[in-house]
Amino acid sequence: MTASSDPQHVRIFDTTLRDGEQSPGISLNTGEKLEIAHQLARLGVDVIEAGFPIASPGDFEAVQAIAREVHGPIIAGLARAQAPDVEAAAKAVADAERPRIHTFISTSDIHIVHQFRSNRDDILAQARAAVAHAKSFVDDVEFSPMDATRAELEYTAEVCAAAIEEGATTINIPDTVGYTTPEEYTAYLEGLYRLIPELKDVIVSVHCHDDLGLAVANSYAGLLAGARQVECAINGIGERAGNCSLEEIVMLLHTRGDASGLHTTAVTTEIARTSRLVSRLSGYVVQPNKAIVGRNAFAHESGIHQDGVIKERTTYEIMDARTVGLDANSLVLGKHSGRAALKQTLAELGFTVEGHALNLAFKRFKDIADKKKQVTAMDLEALVTDDLRNELASYTLDSFDVEAGSQRPPLARVTVTLPDGVPVTAEFSGDGPVDSVFGAINVATGVDAQLRVFRVDAVTGGQDALGESSVVLEFEGQSASGQGVATDIIEAAGHAYVRALSNVVRKAQAAAGAVDLAEREPLSTP
Amino acid sequence: MTASSDPQHVRIFDTTLRDGEQSPGISLNTGEKLEIAHQLARLGVDVIEAGFPIASPGDFEAVQAIAREVHGPIIAGLARAQAPDVEAAAKAVADAERPRIHTFISTSDIHIVHQFRSNRDDILAQARAAVAHAKSFVDDVEFSPMDATRAELEYTAEVCAAAIEEGATTINIPDTVGYTTPEEYTAYLEGLYRLIPELKDVIVSVHCHDDLGLAVANSYAGLLAGARQVECAINGIGERAGNCSLEEIVMLLHTRGDASGLHTTAVTTEIARTSRLVSRLSGYVVQPNKAIVGRNAFAHESGIHQDGVIKERTTYEIMDARTVGLDANSLVLGKHSGRAALKQTLAELGFTVEGHALNLAFKRFKDIADKKKQVTAMDLEALVTDDLRNELASYTLDSFDVEAGSQRPPLARVTVTLPDGVPVTAEFSGDGPVDSVFGAINVATGVDAQLRVFRVDAVTGGQDALGESSVVLEFEGQSASGQGVATDIIEAAGHAYVRALSNVVRKAQAAAGAVDLAEREPLSTP
Repeated sequence: MTASSDPQHVRIFDTTLRDGEQSPGISLNTGEKLEIAHQLARLGVDVIEAGFPIASPGDFEAVQAIAREVHGPIIAGLARAQAPDVEAAAKAVADAERPRIHTFISTSDIHIVHQFRSNRDDILAQARAAVAHAKSFVDDVEFSPMDATRAELEYTAEVCAAAIEEGATTINIPDTVGYTTPEEYTAYLEGLYRLIPELKDVIVSVHCHDDLGLAVANSYAGLLAGARQVECAINGIGERAGNCSLEEIVMLLHTRGDASGLHTTAVTTEIARTSRLVSRLSGYVVQPNKAIVGRNAFAHESGIHQDGVIKERTTYEIMDARTVGLDANSLVLGKHSGRAALKQTLAELGFTVEGHALNLAFKRFKDIADKKKQVTAMDLEALVTDDLRNELASYTLDSFDVEAGSQRPPLARVTVTLPDGVPVTAEFSGDGPVDSVFGAINVATGVDAQLRVFRVDAVTGGQDALGESSVVLEFEGQSASGQGVATDIIEAAGHAYVRALSNVVRKAQAAAGAVDLAEREPLSTP
Repeated sequence: MTASSDPQHVRIFDTTLRDGEQSPGISLNTGEKLEIAHQLARLGVDVIEAGFPIASPGDFEAVQAIAREVHGPIIAGLARAQAPDVEAAAKAVADAERPRIHTFISTSDIHIVHQFRSNRDDILAQARAAVAHAKSFVDDVEFSPMDATRAELEYTAEVCAAAIEEGATTINIPDTVGYTTPEEYTAYLEGLYRLIPELKDVIVSVHCHDDLGLAVANSYAGLLAGARQVECAINGIGERAGNCSLEEIVMLLHTRGDASGLHTTAVTTEIARTSRLVSRLSGYVVQPNKAIVGRNAFAHESGIHQDGVIKERTTYEIMDARTVGLDANSLVLGKHSGRAALKQTLAELGFTVEGHALNLAFKRFKDIADKKKQVTAMDLEALVTDDLRNELASYTLDSFDVEAGSQRPPLARVTVTLPDGVPVTAEFSGDGPVDSVFGAINVATGVDAQLRVFRVDAVTGGQDALGESSVVLEFEGQSASGQGVATDIIEAAGHAYVRALSNVVRKAQAAAGAVDLAEREPLSTP
C-alpha cells in the first residue's frame, strides 16, 4: 500500500513559504526559500505551498525555482479565483514533478460583502471558473472556500460541490480568522460530508489559525472527522497568531497514533533542524516553552539532571528528544579540520557546497574555529545559512569600529559599500555602541529607515557562542528583516542592519513600480 | 448573584509563580514575585498559586509575603501529601485573606512504582491524611491526583472520593505530562463524575500541559465537561512546554462565550501588560506569532495599514486589540516632565512608588529622557521592573568601558563591587565587546559560571529604544537568569550578567546548605 492509497495516511501540506512568509517583517529571498524547501523535502512533507506567484515577481521567481529544483513533494502555487492569478500559478509550478494549483475565494457573507463587494451567485461562478481554468493546466487542483467557518454551511457546500464538479481533487476548509472550536469545526465538516456526497471521493484538508490557541486542536478535530490533509507551518508562523504548527500536529499524530489511528510519513528526526532553519531565516524567535521545538520542551535540554531524566524518562516525558532530532548538536569540527572534512560534514547536514562556495565556507569556518574551541553542527548551520543572505544584498558593511563605556559617549565609525559599488565612511554617536553603528550606517547610506525590531541571541550555549542578530526596518510603508551571524554581536547586528536595509529598499522600490502589476486590492488569503 | 455562586463562572487559577517559576533558568526574587502577584490581582484572577513553600526558604518567604500583601485573589501554597509540606504551606499562607492549601500525590502506576516506590493502598492513605491535615489549618483545600490522565480511572476516582470525604473543596485533574486529547480528557472527567456522586458538590479543576500543543483545547474540553476552575500561566510558561496559557483560555472564553456559555471575571485589558511583566522578569521571550500576546497576534501591530484593518476590523480580526490592553503604549512623558507627573503616571500604571524609590525612579527617568525623545508607558514599565532586580544582587557592575572593531581585537575593562563591598577592576579581550565584558566580569569576580543563554531585545520600536538583555548562567549544577535594561545594550548585558551571577551563586549556596532541609527526592509537581 502506498502512502497515498492508505486511508489512514494524513498528508502534511506545509505553508511556511506562503502563509508563513506573509507574516509582518519576514522577507525571504529566493535562495533562502529554496534552502527551506529543500529542508522541507528532507522532512518528508507531502506538499510544499511555495508561494503566491501573482503577488510579486520575487514570489513568482521563488515558486518557479522551487518547482524546478526541489524533488519529492508536490509543489503548490496559490491563486485567487481570477484568471491572471491561476495563469501565473500554472506557469510558476509548470516544471514541478507534481504541480498543484491552489485557488480560493471567500464564502462568508462578511467577506463577500465587505471585501469582494460581490454576491453569492458571482462568487459561485468565479469559483467554478477558476477551478476549471486551473484544471486546464494541471490535474492536481485544490480549492478553498476562504473564511468557511464563519460562512453558511449550505452555501459553502454548494460552492465546494461546484469545485469538485469542475475537477478539484482537494477541498480545504479554512478557519481563516482562527474563530472556530473543535466541536464546531467537527460539526461543520460533518455537515459538508452530509451535504456533498462527492466529498468522500476527494481529499478534505484543514487549515486552522491560532488566534485563540486552538489551531492544533481544531486541525486534529478535522482529521478525526475525516480530513486527510493538514495545512501547517514550521514554528506555527503565519498571519497574525499563525497557522497550525507543523511540529505539533506531526508529533501529536506520531505520539498518539493509538488514539486517532492516523499517521504521517514525515521524518520526525528532521523537525528540530527545520525549526532552527526557519527561525533563523525568518528572524522569528521560538519561545523557550514552545511545544516540541522550544529550548525547554524536553526537560533534559536544560543540561541539568540530564541522567536522571533519561533513566526515568517515561515518568515525565511522553516523547524522546531524539525523535525530533534534538541530539544533533554534538561536536563536529575543530580548528585543525580541513576542507574535505568540512565538505563531508556539510553533506551530512544536507548542504551541498562546492567550488567557490566551499572556499568561502572554509574561510568562514577557519575564522570561527580560530575564535571558538569547538565548531558544532548548529554553528555550521548558522554560517551556511548566513551566506545565503548576501544573495540580494545591495548594501554591504565593510568595516566598523566602536568605543563605548559608562564614562564617555559611544562613537562608531563604519564603511558601507553602496549599491553602485562606492564605499562610504561615516561616524555617529548614539545611545550605545549598536545604536551608534546603526546611526552611522544611516548616515553613510542616506536611507532614513525606522528600526522596528532588534534582537540578538546566542546560537548555542557557552561563552564563545556565535551571536545571531535580527533587525526589522520600516521604510516607505514596507517592512523587511535582515539577519547576521558573528562571534562579535555588534558585527552581527551591523550585518543584520545592512541586509534589512537592502531588503526594505528593494521592497519599497518594487511596491512603487508594481502598483499596476495586479489590482492592488489587499492580497488577503486563507 | 456573586461570581462564585454563578454556575457558569470559570475560576482562573494562575500558577505563573509556581509551575511557571519552575521552568529552567527562571529565578524570581521575592520583590519580583510580589510585583507579578500584584499585577495578577489587577488582572482579576481568582486564585494565585504563589509557590511551593517547602521547596526552599526563598519560596516560603515569597508565598508568605504575597499572602500578607496581595489582596483580592485566594492565595494558594503547594504541598506534597506529606505533613511537613502541608505545615509549611499552612504557615506560608496563614496571613492571607483567603488562604488555600493545594496538596497532591500521583495516582498513575508509572509514578507510584517508579517515583514513589509505593503501592496504591499507601498512596490512598497518604492522600487522605494530607487533605485531613490541610483541613485542620484552612477551609479551602485543593487536591490533585498527579498524572491522572495516565492513571486508572477507577483508582483515581477512589482517591478523589477520599479527598472529598476529608474535606477537599476543589479537585484538580492534572494532565501532568501533556499526553491527553480533548476526547480522552472529556471521557475521563465524565467517568469521574459518574463514579463520584460527590464530585458535583465541589469545584472540579483542569491543569493541562502543552507538550503536544493541546493545553488550551484540553482545558476547554474539561470546562465543557463540567470543570469550573482552570489552572494556567501567563505566556503559557511552566515545566517543559508549559501550562495552558492564561491569556488564550481567558480570551477563548471571552470571545466564544456564545459557544460555551461560560465566562470569567478576568480584566482582559490587563492581559498585555501582565504578559510583558512576566516575560521581562522571567527572561522568557514571547514569540511574535504567539496567540493573543505575540507582537503580530493583532495584524495592526505591524504599524502598516493600521487604518485599513481598523476600518474593516471584523473581516480579519475576531478580537479588538484594545480588549487585551494593546493600546496602552501611547506617549506619556517627555524630558521636561517633573516628579509629580512621573508619580502620577506610575500610579496610573499600577505602580506605587514613593520616597527614596521615587527619587531613584525619577533619576533613572531623567537619564533616559535625556537620551530618548519620548518615554512611553512600556519604557516606564521596563525601568520600574528593572529596579526590582537589584533587591538581592550581591554583585554590582559599577562601570565598564569597551572598544571593538573589525580591524582590532576587542577589549573591555569593568569595575564590579563584590558581595563584601570591595570594588575590583579587571580587563579581558574576548570574541566581541559583550564577550569581553562577560569575561572581564568573570575575572573580577573569580566565579567560573557557564553562559547558557544570552539575548537582547528592544523594548519598543524606534532607533532610540531601550535595550533589554537576558542572561542565563549555570554554576555548580544550578541555573539562574538575570535581566538588565539600558539604552546601551552592552550596559544592559553587563547588568543582566552580574544579576544572573548573583542569582546563580545564591542558588548554588542554598542547594549546598539545604541538602538536609527536605528529603532531596526530586520535587516533581503536577
